[in-house]
Amino acid sequence: MVDVAALTVAQARLQAIYDPQRFQAAAQEWTELLSAHMAKVMDRQPPVLNWAEPEANIAEAERWLDRSAPRFGEIVQQMLDRGHNLHHPRYIGHQVPAPVPIAGLFDAVGAVTNQVMAIYEMGPWATAVERALVNRLGEQVGWQRDSFAGVVTHGGSLGNLTGLLTARNVTLGGAWEEGLTNNAARAVIVVQADAHYSVARAAGIIGLGTQNVRRAALDERRKLDPQKLDEQLAELISQGHRVVAVSACACATPIGAFDPLRDIAVVCRKHGVWMHVDAAHGGAALMSRRYRHLLDGVDQADSIVWDAHKMMFMPALCAFVLYRDKRHRFETFRQEAPYLFDPSAPGMAEYDSGMLTLECTKRAAAFGLWGTWSLFGPTLFEDLVDVTFDLGRVFYEKLLAAEDFVPLHEPECNIVAFRHVPAAMKSAPPEILGAFQRELRRRLIESGKFYIVQTNHGGVGALRVTIINPLTTAHDLDDLLATLREIGVELLRGGWTGPK
Amino acid sequence: MVDVAALTVAQARLQAIYDPQRFQAAAQEWTELLSAHMAKVMDRQPPVLNWAEPEANIAEAERWLDRSAPRFGEIVQQMLDRGHNLHHPRYIGHQVPAPVPIAGLFDAVGAVTNQVMAIYEMGPWATAVERALVNRLGEQVGWQRDSFAGVVTHGGSLGNLTGLLTARNVTLGGAWEEGLTNNAARAVIVVQADAHYSVARAAGIIGLGTQNVRRAALDERRKLDPQKLDEQLAELISQGHRVVAVSACACATPIGAFDPLRDIAVVCRKHGVWMHVDAAHGGAALMSRRYRHLLDGVDQADSIVWDAHKMMFMPALCAFVLYRDKRHRFETFRQEAPYLFDPSAPGMAEYDSGMLTLECTKRAAAFGLWGTWSLFGPTLFEDLVDVTFDLGRVFYEKLLAAEDFVPLHEPECNIVAFRHVPAAMKSAPPEILGAFQRELRRRLIESGKFYIVQTNHGGVGALRVTIINPLTTAHDLDDLLATLREIGVELLRGGWTGPK
Repeated sequence: MVDVAALTVAQARLQAIYDPQRFQAAAQEWTELLSAHMAKVMDRQPPVLNWAEPEANIAEAERWLDRSAPRFGEIVQQMLDRGHNLHHPRYIGHQVPAPVPIAGLFDAVGAVTNQVMAIYEMGPWATAVERALVNRLGEQVGWQRDSFAGVVTHGGSLGNLTGLLTARNVTLGGAWEEGLTNNAARAVIVVQADAHYSVARAAGIIGLGTQNVRRAALDERRKLDPQKLDEQLAELISQGHRVVAVSACACATPIGAFDPLRDIAVVCRKHGVWMHVDAAHGGAALMSRRYRHLLDGVDQADSIVWDAHKMMFMPALCAFVLYRDKRHRFETFRQEAPYLFDPSAPGMAEYDSGMLTLECTKRAAAFGLWGTWSLFGPTLFEDLVDVTFDLGRVFYEKLLAAEDFVPLHEPECNIVAFRHVPAAMKSAPPEILGAFQRELRRRLIESGKFYIVQTNHGGVGALRVTIINPLTTAHDLDDLLATLREIGVELLRGGWTGPK
Repeated sequence: MVDVAALTVAQARLQAIYDPQRFQAAAQEWTELLSAHMAKVMDRQPPVLNWAEPEANIAEAERWLDRSAPRFGEIVQQMLDRGHNLHHPRYIGHQVPAPVPIAGLFDAVGAVTNQVMAIYEMGPWATAVERALVNRLGEQVGWQRDSFAGVVTHGGSLGNLTGLLTARNVTLGGAWEEGLTNNAARAVIVVQADAHYSVARAAGIIGLGTQNVRRAALDERRKLDPQKLDEQLAELISQGHRVVAVSACACATPIGAFDPLRDIAVVCRKHGVWMHVDAAHGGAALMSRRYRHLLDGVDQADSIVWDAHKMMFMPALCAFVLYRDKRHRFETFRQEAPYLFDPSAPGMAEYDSGMLTLECTKRAAAFGLWGTWSLFGPTLFEDLVDVTFDLGRVFYEKLLAAEDFVPLHEPECNIVAFRHVPAAMKSAPPEILGAFQRELRRRLIESGKFYIVQTNHGGVGALRVTIINPLTTAHDLDDLLATLREIGVELLRGGWTGPK
């Protein structure tokens, strides 16, 4: 038996917490705190990254869990004070953008009201919004309406996993049901040598094995070489291998190189191999008249990953997986969940996102993109690509013009890898030169003055920027070089001679 | 060469869109619209579900993408008007809660400022918050600090996939690198027969094959039977099978049955088999002194999935995967991504979430839980469990007391399956009785008066509620029965005799 009196009392406590007036007061305070924060960050006042050692941060996060009734505003301010300020114009780091701020409000409509998908009826509008955007993105690829399909998932890594799992199931008949024991003998995936780690990881997850990931040769610009791919596929097939997919990049992350997709597609067709394109970063270039040529031929791919949370400047995560042939959309998984997917309305399966994605319950992850597109129109995305890609070129020209900086490639987009090579480093051995870059970066980001990342080029450490904040100016880029110079001088004056 | 004049003009357009004052004005409007909406919904004014046919909704979503400059407020209102109102007290459906409204504001701090993880330095505070909560949840399980590990992922399905992938890699040495060709012969997973579809799906994904999912027998209360499990494991092993894992439920979704975890653990230990517990729904019962006994023995599991976006009433998605032995945390994946994971700071790998999760870039998915816990303290979660579980019992007693309703089980939590059996249905054959339930439900949810779901029991269609909104009252539950009666009368008067 239920203790009705206790239930009533507990329920009254919860009703007070759910009170819409309480929500309203909190949302008003949230608005003021967040707006003030954004204004300061865009004005370059706080550090870019609020660096703290992991264990100190964890202890601090736990301390708040034990506090006696802190105020709402204090908690929000704590989150803002400890975070990473991606809207700071000197955040020029990973392929994670300073998102359109208002996009976060559309996203948050979904969070507060908890709009989700899995089956259509749980999120009819969330489903519709996602489908409308799949239609638009597929048309940007160059496909005919109703011939293609797609779905949103939580990030490019899940997108690559989804696309390659579909390729596995299409290529290795029976793999889904029987497992790979009898189906995967000599199965391989051919992967652009600079591909994101999630591609090789997908091979480990789906049972092909990371040893069966074959690297496709790159040319001197670190682009997949179609001629060598042709030879590689011919050799693999003649050896009795089943090639589950070729995974190309648009673009690869280290230096932002776009593969020659049209030529790769010809090779894949010739050998009857599934072509997957990881366009997580570069897909958005399709929105730009000036830069869409970088993806020429992408319409020939069997599957494409395109992250709206990268170069469409949406908050994480909103990744699209697109299939050229819509018949492939149900090949990823092959199950039924009768209690979930209503057998009395089988036509709804077409609209049940759970049939297509790794997620069952899925957030309305496309609300931000849909609202932003509706409010500002698609030319916003063209501007974002054009401005940041152009700034990549601007930065490259500054590097070229500087005696003590070396760009490592001519950029095709907003990713630029480079090194700082002051006079004292001109004849340093590679391991010292690389370690010097890493030490420069570590001191730079912990100072909070800029946020940039590191990479390897020719096996040697290097610096790397992604200009993924439209508020970054040419002046900020000048200051980045000046600040790196200052840190370099300090380092060398302090007697730095190499890694400890 | 860059056209500097064009770049300047485009950048000015973007600066206007990023303007913090513009954000502030939008956030103020957002606050007013959302607060008004929440007040109406909690007051039961709008429909629960705004039902519309899929193609009509998709066309409407596309129409907005083509509109010429709609106002921000119009777009937000459209999202609210078309959504599913989970905060309506008559939303009593899937295992997706009416979340704590203020939790959405904490979540939205992350969305607007785009706090993400993958490597520690990208989201130091997001990482710290997640780790602090992993510590708390693991301690609720009953584990000793520093002995266990865990991570947050985007939903219970990814959680089950993550846990079972870890089990595969631990059990089948070499599977990650070599693939399953030589490793998976006769490998099986033993799964509670009522387990969520994501468990069998995981077997398909990770290369074991859905045919190699062996159903564990249930007792008459639909709980996994430990004695039969013992016999099944002995037989499988004697036949030369490798058992990758036993996957138990706390609770299973159809009727909310909690498996006897302590007895299952003894059997798993005896046979040396990995024990996985899908506690996506029921994990939160550990926060309740009155209900934590339902998970007795869960501390013996090797891996546990616990969704904060279910019974901790957080917005989707925030699922915890917990490992009893922290040494297992790096077994899920076994790669390096040198450009991403800084070799100059190898100690940071311990804090790089990308080493542990399917996602690379990951949203700060635990902000809602951390902020809510800090603001209201952990007793909030106890109240939420106690109230909704108690209401499950209240509803069951109402069903028992009604002549024309039949509960299909005695509920252990807030999930209750039942049928409406008016006089005219008392002697109907099972397929008609089941179809009658489904038709009742379809009409009920499209009316917007209530949202409930359907299930199968004994192979026959049934109705099912999850009381996952603390605003639902006993009176709402009475009205649910009355409304179902009315629809039943209409149906039968209208000459309904069975499915078309």
